[in-house]
Amino acid sequence: MPRRSHGKRAVVALGGNAITRPGEAGTVEQDYANLDHSLEGVVALLERGYELVLTHGNGPQIGNQMIRVEVARDEAPILPLDLMGADIQGGMGYMIEKVLRGKLRKKGMAHRVCCLITLVEVDASDPAFDNPTKFVGPFYREEEVEKLSRERGWVIKEDSGRGWRRVVPSPKPIAIIEQHEITALLDSGAVVICGGGGGIPVSRSRSGELEGVEGVIDKDLASAIIALGVRSPELVVLTGAEKVLLNFGTLEETPISIMSVLEARKYQEEGHFPAGSMGPKIDAACRFIEGGGSRTLITDPFKLGDALEGHTGTWITP
Amino acid sequence: MPRRSHGKRAVVALGGNAITRPGEAGTVEQDYANLDHSLEGVVALLERGYELVLTHGNGPQIGNQMIRVEVARDEAPILPLDLMGADIQGGMGYMIEKVLRGKLRKKGMAHRVCCLITLVEVDASDPAFDNPTKFVGPFYREEEVEKLSRERGWVIKEDSGRGWRRVVPSPKPIAIIEQHEITALLDSGAVVICGGGGGIPVSRSRSGELEGVEGVIDKDLASAIIALGVRSPELVVLTGAEKVLLNFGTLEETPISIMSVLEARKYQEEGHFPAGSMGPKIDAACRFIEGGGSRTLITDPFKLGDALEGHTGTWITP
Repeated sequence: MPRRSHGKRAVVALGGNAITRPGEAGTVEQDYANLDHSLEGVVALLERGYELVLTHGNGPQIGNQMIRVEVARDEAPILPLDLMGADIQGGMGYMIEKVLRGKLRKKGMAHRVCCLITLVEVDASDPAFDNPTKFVGPFYREEEVEKLSRERGWVIKEDSGRGWRRVVPSPKPIAIIEQHEITALLDSGAVVICGGGGGIPVSRSRSGELEGVEGVIDKDLASAIIALGVRSPELVVLTGAEKVLLNFGTLEETPISIMSVLEARKYQEEGHFPAGSMGPKIDAACRFIEGGGSRTLITDPFKLGDALEGHTGTWITP
Repeated sequence: MPRRSHGKRAVVALGGNAITRPGEAGTVEQDYANLDHSLEGVVALLERGYELVLTHGNGPQIGNQMIRVEVARDEAPILPLDLMGADIQGGMGYMIEKVLRGKLRKKGMAHRVCCLITLVEVDASDPAFDNPTKFVGPFYREEEVEKLSRERGWVIKEDSGRGWRRVVPSPKPIAIIEQHEITALLDSGAVVICGGGGGIPVSRSRSGELEGVEGVIDKDLASAIIALGVRSPELVVLTGAEKVLLNFGTLEETPISIMSVLEARKYQEEGHFPAGSMGPKIDAACRFIEGGGSRTLITDPFKLGDALEGHTGTWITP
């Protein structure tokens, strides 16, 4: 099997809006069209000789699956959240693999692409389990809440004036169960799609067996753990913004080209990065560098080529 | 990475009833309980030092997903059959991986287990596309048939007096798209779950890109192609029967312990093996041996240990 140098290895985290854009229903046709466009940057990395692991979000897709399971609950078995996450890893991995193989073939590039189902270990005593914060799935009417809480054991909260939704914990990823296999696939020369939706969260029982967890792992944090596991020097977080901004949402908005982990942590404490959007990406970037990574790039998927030439994007360094 | 001899490599195809039993709704609890029981034989093979690829059926699970997509079609996007197959590969692979890892851990066995999403190439000019024969998904009322045919382009037929169902082609598998990756994972020491539901059928466009196909590949035939691809000398087909029977369903039923491919083909021509059940398994067994495989075992998952000792099962040899 061909083995290449690890010098240009990177983990690329595709944001949810690289696949389903805000306001779209998330039809299969829309998702394929968006992927065709947003995987251009990934092709650019491969053209530069990178070995790649590709991770991705799954919000709209798992949201739709939760709707299907709920609407059809009298006619087909209910599925727990971990199993829905596994289903969606398969479906999205297939779509990404097929689109990327097609784009590479058109360019005469011989890379292979595959998707590995990925379980991510979390600590059963993670404090996140006492304070669920991640809204998932469809909205419910207020009069349904009591019955759902009782019958399913769900925590249901009001979501910013939009209605009532299930809320689940977002525990921290501590290990990638298939890390050895992801490395083996990378070493064999394949582009590896894995860790979709942040991975399927599992914790260990007292006797050490893996058990599915009803929660959602932040996909950028999971990507950082994967990047450390495969000894990738670079983590690339693709999102809706070309650069990270200081004073976001004010008249003093200032784009950042480069910052150290210490600077990033300081800005974060000062409240520059919103908790629901850039905050977790900065967290993941810092966590990766603190764990031994060389640098993290945060940019828009369509600016990736420019960013690699040093013309844009935000680089976070030790 | 550890590399072991290929002498004891096998591909094991788990029948659908190893996961959801006839008459069950296919709840997640039932599926986990059945897997816990039916993976015993797989553990027995690993204890004997086998390197394993594990394939599996998906009938009840993809049937339930088709019901969900249909029932919720006004609230969540419709999914094509290839994408549903990918979803279910992910979900079932996760379940099998988790249960098998748990069983191995209890025994103190250190095998790793993973699931690779698998695309299987079929020929776009396969005659099966002109004659769809495989019933899939929910039953419809006769008055819905015309509208569904027109709007979705489906072929819908009456299924043995039980109602109207969609019918799709069952083209022959010709190549495993991720064959190189399955081999790399096996070589790295992992048990590889792949080819679920016969794999996601794809064909090549004129320019050579992969396109999803609305069809179902026979899972035993796909398993034979996977076994040839990874140069496994053995194919193990697990089903509801301990042995293959001659004169099936008559007073002269006779179990077979061993037969050559020539004998098997002759019996098949004489009509001993029903088209909907044992027929495709015999086909797969023969196809594997004709392609260079050493032997195929057909037996019940719970008799696998006994069969490996030579006490039961049906062996098909060159």
